[in-house]
Parts: sequence; structure tokens; C-alpha cells
Amino acid sequence: MAFDSVTAPLSRDIRPGTVDSVVAALRFDAQGLIPAIAQDAGDGAVLMMAWMNAAAVRETLSTGRVCYWSRSRQALWRKGESSGHVQRLVDFRYDCDADALLLLVDQTGPACHTYRRSCFYNGVRPDGVAVLSQPLVD
Amino acid sequence: MAFDSVTAPLSRDIRPGTVDSVVAALRFDAQGLIPAIAQDAGDGAVLMMAWMNAAAVRETLSTGRVCYWSRSRQALWRKGESSGHVQRLVDFRYDCDADALLLLVDQTGPACHTYRRSCFYNGVRPDGVAVLSQPLVD
Repeated sequence: MAFDSVTAPLSRDIRPGTVDSVVAALRFDAQGLIPAIAQDAGDGAVLMMAWMNAAAVRETLSTGRVCYWSRSRQALWRKGESSGHVQRLVDFRYDCDADALLLLVDQTGPACHTYRRSCFYNGVRPDGVAVLSQPLVD
Repeated sequence: MAFDSVTAPLSRDIRPGTVDSVVAALRFDAQGLIPAIAQDAGDGAVLMMAWMNAAAVRETLSTGRVCYWSRSRQALWRKGESSGHVQRLVDFRYDCDADALLLLVDQTGPACHTYRRSCFYNGVRPDGVAVLSQPLVD
């Protein structure tokens, strides 16, 4: 990986005490949420941004499969549960203020519900907004 | 760039009408803010996550230098204004729901106030949290 080097931390199970200490360290917002960026562990492409609550953090660290909190559905959102487009957790990082997460993931299929690889497909150009990528075809 | 290909959109000025239409398209939250991910345009490293309001979006697009909104200071935060660690905007993207921003940047010096290149230096390992990088030395 050119963009970063990762020693796969999930090659063995994360201890329950570690999960507890991570949840305790994170600064969730007034709604109990923290933003989570998903980045492709292979080439560094930013795939999406979503939200986690403490339960989503616990499930993600315990299972190695990324689980978010859906603000629209107000429920745990096990990424890929219906689409099959799961994210296997490769690394779980948080920032200096402990109020944002960076997940390095191994993404199956497209990350975006539009079937694009990344959700960030709108690019500002001098004369307007361009669509930078097209939906993937199976 | 291995992680993505960018046609530098800021090689010429962004039209004021484009800035208006981007601000109109974005979905700011109840506090008038939207999360912004800064990614190194060179190698794809995710450097930081911060927040923008409409004024910060306008200033960033108009000047080509990244300006956030500081929630702690409740003021525009012209990144690098005091430290010199500015971010030149290389690309400005937003996601499928128009509620998150991805900024590709050319970062001068470290992005993090701890003088680390990236704010995301805490990595979860099976037995605890590891510090993955050290402060840069000038």
C-alpha cells in the first residue's frame, strides 16, 4: 500500500477489555454518535462516511465486519446485510480528539447505494458539478 | 496517483454561480455544519476530519485554500493561518447524500496540531490502542 502501511490488527481477536477502553476513550456527540470514514485498505480511496454509536463500535470491533448506526432508520446498520456489499475491517483508527473514526476496510462490491465504488462522486468544476464515476456493473 | 485520478479543477477560477449552486446542493445539519474529510491528493492518506459551514465552503472554493468552521471557537478556521500548515485545495467532492465533503488537498507540513502528519494516529490493536505515528520534525 503506497498510501500507508498497516499491520493487520485483526489477525487475532481483539480483547473485550480493549473494546471497552476504546468505547470509553471515544467522544460521542450529543446524539451518542461519532462520524466514521471508510477508506479502502488496498489503494486508499475514501469510500463513504457514516455514523456509529457505541453499540456499532462494539459490534464492528468484535466481529471484524463494519456496522454503522443508521440515523434515518434509527437502527444498527450492518453494512451489506441486504446488498452483500460488506466491509471487512482491516484497521480501526481514531483521531487526536477521539471524535472521528477512520476505518480501513476490505470492501466487497460498491460502497455506495448508487452502485458506485465511492459515495464521493460529485466533483466541483469551474462551471458546475461533475459526476466523476459511474455505477459498477456486476 | 494510484488511489484515484484527479483532473485539477482549480486550474482556473470557479465561477461564482458554481459556488452558489454547490452551497445550495449541500445538506448542512441542524447547526448549519457539514463534515469535511481532508485527504492528501498525492498519496491518498486521510489527514483529518473537520467541519464547514456555508461561509467556509464559499471561502474554500473561492480562494483555493481550505477554511473550516471551528466548533470550539465558533469562528472560521483558516487552516494554517497561525501555524503555516495550510491546505491548498486540489479537489472538492461531496457524497451521494450531499451531507459529507471530501477535500483532496496539498498539505504544507503536518495536518495535526500534534505535529503528526495525520490526526488518525490511534490504532486499535488486540491488546490495546497503539500510537501509529510520531510528530514530524522540521
